[in-house]
Amino acid sequence: MTPRPLGQRKADTLHRLDHDVDAWVATADPAGTPYLVPLSFLWDGETLLISTAATNPTARNLRSGGRVRLTVGPTRDVVLVEGSAEVVEVSAAVADAFAAKTGFDPREQRNYPYFRVRPELIQAWREANEIAGRELMVEGEWQV
Amino acid sequence: MTPRPLGQRKADTLHRLDHDVDAWVATADPAGTPYLVPLSFLWDGETLLISTAATNPTARNLRSGGRVRLTVGPTRDVVLVEGSAEVVEVSAAVADAFAAKTGFDPREQRNYPYFRVRPELIQAWREANEIAGRELMVEGEWQV
Repeated sequence: MTPRPLGQRKADTLHRLDHDVDAWVATADPAGTPYLVPLSFLWDGETLLISTAATNPTARNLRSGGRVRLTVGPTRDVVLVEGSAEVVEVSAAVADAFAAKTGFDPREQRNYPYFRVRPELIQAWREANEIAGRELMVEGEWQV
Repeated sequence: MTPRPLGQRKADTLHRLDHDVDAWVATADPAGTPYLVPLSFLWDGETLLISTAATNPTARNLRSGGRVRLTVGPTRDVVLVEGSAEVVEVSAAVADAFAAKTGFDPREQRNYPYFRVRPELIQAWREANEIAGRELMVEGEWQV
């Protein structure tokens, strides 16, 4: 299999970010205990919006450290995003868009904050032959 | 959709552990920086065997803290395993079984240790209706 060139990987990655519903979201507590759960997300072209109960470890970890590493896609077609997250208030239009895409409306739950994940690193690879050249965004800048 | 009873979830979980090839493996460094990668695994009925380069963050994190949280299956059919991992030497027969199942033989790489993950917590759920009753193993004991 020929490795996809950078432009194709970016196009495929943006397609997944636009259309995939769920991500695997990894966080950690300050003691270094990892946490991992699937969460639905909304991509706005620059950031991912997620929501989880304020009492869940993911929310606690994001509030305390803010570091997140998440993936979209299956294990052999990986889009990986690393960045920081912060609690945000969102407009009704954004909340509507989140609910429409994910089928889940945090406004109907009790104490479900939204978190905005700002990517600093984005990688995309399918199999071992695509490990080289997998970096699409580095330090927040899309590679060209 | 009717939630699966405990016995069915355990049977489905063991089937995934036996037959699925890849897991999402979350670890963290002592400062609380999360790491997440897909890794192939071999299940022996009690533990999962994984392997990654000794220089990768996953290996460093497992050596320093040993805590791991991993998932098998897609985001809407989750098998979640939490436990500790340690570096192990494996027999030729086990290494052969790992290579045969995963299509990847760490013995052909330079400095790829094996790690054995011993589950303490196992959960299985598909959608929101299966969040209740998702605990199949607690503190290393299968629930009955």
